[in-house]
Amino acid sequence: MCRWLAYFGKPVLMDAVLYGPQHSLIEQSLSSRLGAEPTNGDGFGIGWYGRYGAGVFKSIEPAWNDRNLHELAGHIESHLFLAHVRATSGTAVQQTNCHPFRYDGRLFCHNGVVRDWPKVKRDLVLAVDPELYPLIEGSADSEVLFYLALTFGLKEDPPAAVARTIGLVEQVGRAHDVEFPFQGTIATTDGERLWGFRYSSEGKSRSLFYTSSYESLRALYPDDPRLELFDDETRLVVSEPLGDLPGVWNEVPEASYGIIQPGQDELHQFRPEP
Amino acid sequence: MCRWLAYFGKPVLMDAVLYGPQHSLIEQSLSSRLGAEPTNGDGFGIGWYGRYGAGVFKSIEPAWNDRNLHELAGHIESHLFLAHVRATSGTAVQQTNCHPFRYDGRLFCHNGVVRDWPKVKRDLVLAVDPELYPLIEGSADSEVLFYLALTFGLKEDPPAAVARTIGLVEQVGRAHDVEFPFQGTIATTDGERLWGFRYSSEGKSRSLFYTSSYESLRALYPDDPRLELFDDETRLVVSEPLGDLPGVWNEVPEASYGIIQPGQDELHQFRPEP
Amino acid sequence: MCRWLAYFGKPVLMDAVLYGPQHSLIEQSLSSRLGAEPTNGDGFGIGWYGRYGAGVFKSIEPAWNDRNLHELAGHIESHLFLAHVRATSGTAVQQTNCHPFRYDGRLFCHNGVVRDWPKVKRDLVLAVDPELYPLIEGSADSEVLFYLALTFGLKEDPPAAVARTIGLVEQVGRAHDVEFPFQGTIATTDGERLWGFRYSSEGKSRSLFYTSSYESLRALYPDDPRLELFDDETRLVVSEPLGDLPGVWNEVPEASYGIIQPGQDELHQFRPEP
Amino acid sequence: MCRWLAYFGKPVLMDAVLYGPQHSLIEQSLSSRLGAEPTNGDGFGIGWYGRYGAGVFKSIEPAWNDRNLHELAGHIESHLFLAHVRATSGTAVQQTNCHPFRYDGRLFCHNGVVRDWPKVKRDLVLAVDPELYPLIEGSADSEVLFYLALTFGLKEDPPAAVARTIGLVEQVGRAHDVEFPFQGTIATTDGERLWGFRYSSEGKSRSLFYTSSYESLRALYPDDPRLELFDDETRLVVSEPLGDLPGVWNEVPEASYGIIQPGQDELHQFRPEP
Repeated sequence: MCRWLAYFGKPVLMDAVLYGPQHSLIEQSLSSRLGAEPTNGDGFGIGWYGRYGAGVFKSIEPAWNDRNLHELAGHIESHLFLAHVRATSGTAVQQTNCHPFRYDGRLFCHNGVVRDWPKVKRDLVLAVDPELYPLIEGSADSEVLFYLALTFGLKEDPPAAVARTIGLVEQVGRAHDVEFPFQGTIATTDGERLWGFRYSSEGKSRSLFYTSSYESLRALYPDDPRLELFDDETRLVVSEPLGDLPGVWNEVPEASYGIIQPGQDELHQFRPEP
Repeated sequence: MCRWLAYFGKPVLMDAVLYGPQHSLIEQSLSSRLGAEPTNGDGFGIGWYGRYGAGVFKSIEPAWNDRNLHELAGHIESHLFLAHVRATSGTAVQQTNCHPFRYDGRLFCHNGVVRDWPKVKRDLVLAVDPELYPLIEGSADSEVLFYLALTFGLKEDPPAAVARTIGLVEQVGRAHDVEFPFQGTIATTDGERLWGFRYSSEGKSRSLFYTSSYESLRALYPDDPRLELFDDETRLVVSEPLGDLPGVWNEVPEASYGIIQPGQDELHQFRPEP
Repeated sequence: MCRWLAYFGKPVLMDAVLYGPQHSLIEQSLSSRLGAEPTNGDGFGIGWYGRYGAGVFKSIEPAWNDRNLHELAGHIESHLFLAHVRATSGTAVQQTNCHPFRYDGRLFCHNGVVRDWPKVKRDLVLAVDPELYPLIEGSADSEVLFYLALTFGLKEDPPAAVARTIGLVEQVGRAHDVEFPFQGTIATTDGERLWGFRYSSEGKSRSLFYTSSYESLRALYPDDPRLELFDDETRLVVSEPLGDLPGVWNEVPEASYGIIQPGQDELHQFRPEP
Repeated sequence: MCRWLAYFGKPVLMDAVLYGPQHSLIEQSLSSRLGAEPTNGDGFGIGWYGRYGAGVFKSIEPAWNDRNLHELAGHIESHLFLAHVRATSGTAVQQTNCHPFRYDGRLFCHNGVVRDWPKVKRDLVLAVDPELYPLIEGSADSEVLFYLALTFGLKEDPPAAVARTIGLVEQVGRAHDVEFPFQGTIATTDGERLWGFRYSSEGKSRSLFYTSSYESLRALYPDDPRLELFDDETRLVVSEPLGDLPGVWNEVPEASYGIIQPGQDELHQFRPEP
């Protein structure tokens, strides 16, 4: 279990978004309300797009008191970034297990679990493109999901690639008698568009929310003049709402995915591809 | 805010006590119930007495997933040890701020706060014996409390030394218009006896509990054959109860201190010495 | 490249051996003389056998200033232990890549490299017993060597298992046009015997030395009364000599392995098994 | 003993300067040639000025394999920055002991030592302005030097403030029978100018070098098109030369300080102020 946030819109200093509102993501690292676990203190990561491409910063320490995170978020501007706070479901606390994962300008993060991971890991890893396989550095299920999605065409067609990835997870899981093999939400981006997925084999997925208007965002950050930059195209997507304001957040429906992009956003049904 | 545990009794492997019961100290690092903060994830430490004197092990990472802690606690036996999980009240997350502090065979840990620490720090540090001063390595209020207590005779008479220490904290605090300068509980030991203090300037101190019978301890750890070693002299002192069993824990009264020792234990009123 | 030390003999506090002599292993972490790299600062680990089985302690920080290592080595006695300081050949600096690796009471450490690791990794990992596969937690070549050796019977016949492991490494490497696939030394133990291997595909292996007499050991540690415990059965095996004393160290010949055990030790030729 | 680098000039991505040349600062962390110690692996720090003021990033791990440092240096542009790799002379390896230190837009780093630090620490700390005192977070001599310099007017007149600081160190040291109380080099900046000092009580100071022409800089980084930005005002100041090129580096004379600034730079004699 973990928590994540994605920002898409006008370039902002990341700290304005990460630390700003009451019940921010950083606060959720210490005490989340909707998560399966209240504490997400097993490391964190941020990934951003800026003038020099996609950058990542990861740490095995909790986000809430990490001074480096606060510094960097106060010096790096981005129009599109992901932040993730981790609660391990068993794999080691190490930077290579921290999200977001990156490959060739793509970022990826996941909140949830591939159930009975030790049982299914080998079959799933074997399905990763042998060219990509040596790039797997950690032991987390989420990293393997990313490399499976890359294997299945994440760079060309993210919804299809994620559908095949989760389809394979379900097929392999069921072959090993795992009742509900996949649970979670996924965010992935190429720096221009952002895809968010919500799905679980049991039909009761981790929560996923997004903002859809300028007014919602301004309500979340009423006091920060830097955030007057927000415009009608700016969006936040989060695994758990920031703040307590009614009317700000739209829930992504069960078994759906959304695309945040310049112009009209999209929301579609999601079905794993066997 | 922090949580701590002290064990006194027959030598046991530390992991039996630390990880055993429901709502153990390690679980409290992730989610404490009585603390001012639910999470105590800003580092931890253990200090123990064994065949080769007093040892300490400290880390800036959360206790709950620390593999080294689990290993060591499963290999080191002790008849008297302290364990502490930290939630910083503002000072840096670094090993030198982790408890227990050690000097010349003495261990010391603290749960609570010297209020308005930046205001009063200099005056308190100046009162530390200049011979001891260079040994202060961190920036935490608790470490300075320890060196003040050493300055005031902790090695000879712990209750008197702690009374003078807290007396000075109150005097200096009040000179700086701090309404309630001290809050907390303290554990200190020389390897033979264990002193536990509960006091706050406002008369509403952090909680402190102890076990007083073999039956209580066996109730806490019913399933662990290693703990059949417990005898009538074995005691646990904790800042927050382990487990949910009624009748196991005795509360140390407000403004009191206790001495756990071979033979009859003692419980006394505590009053700071101006 | 890394450096390691193995101790076999009378139980001693580990710090006596690790920190004692001039040019000790801890000093080698900072500045080794025979290593391919002078600094071995990418983490370290110790693994020991004691009253409660095999324990390990690992850290991603350099050994030379690690206070926890010094503490623990000063409190844990062992009759057989391995210590390893790491210089990564490219894989991440994380605890799961630190040696010694442990499985079911066996410890294993390696100094050297599987050449062109990214090329050959997948084929080698596929050869690991699928039951063992999920236990691989890191990304280092050395950990895979260990799981291959376990797959090939390390618990029953270490020399045969290591011969098959390195045989496979050479076979897979050559299939990928790697001229000299394996280089290094290996130490492995079950807590009763210790096996040390020296081999490289090119016939110019990393160094490996051992002591063979009480006099040698006493010469290394002349001033430490704790080490009067040494007896004629006590041995040190090291990847680089400690100290500068002539006549203390015997070199393990190229393409050989030794067995340190109660009674007569053994030294044999080593040949990979294709 | 430590090593540091200061860059002043056209804005560049920090990685171009830090990782570029043969024998770069990052390489010096692993293996320095002129330092008292060859390895500077006890943490590191960078401090930079950019669009959003002065930022710092610090870590207790060695610089050479730190992925976060490499990432950040590849995403943050600066016209003036300091980088420091640490070799502790005894104080703890913790972020609060890592350079550069920052206060109110000023950065400060030091390479060298206040001799017999435990003896003189208390007297020196007492001389720090009581308003600044609570901001001292670590235990290193260098941090106290910074707060002394701030106490003595670093913001108004750096050469005078550093002269009084070192004057006090010498006075206090000699009162404690320390023969040569100060040794080292210092860099400090306000984001517009850069001051570099070289001085030691014994008249044999740590080395300090600077570049003085466009040609020198281009010779250091011949292959990096990003560094075509260098102009005649761009300067590097380093505690140890990068690269092996003859004629590139000018040595700052013993007991001197330089000012790098827009327009004409300056070089003056330095004398501590008692």
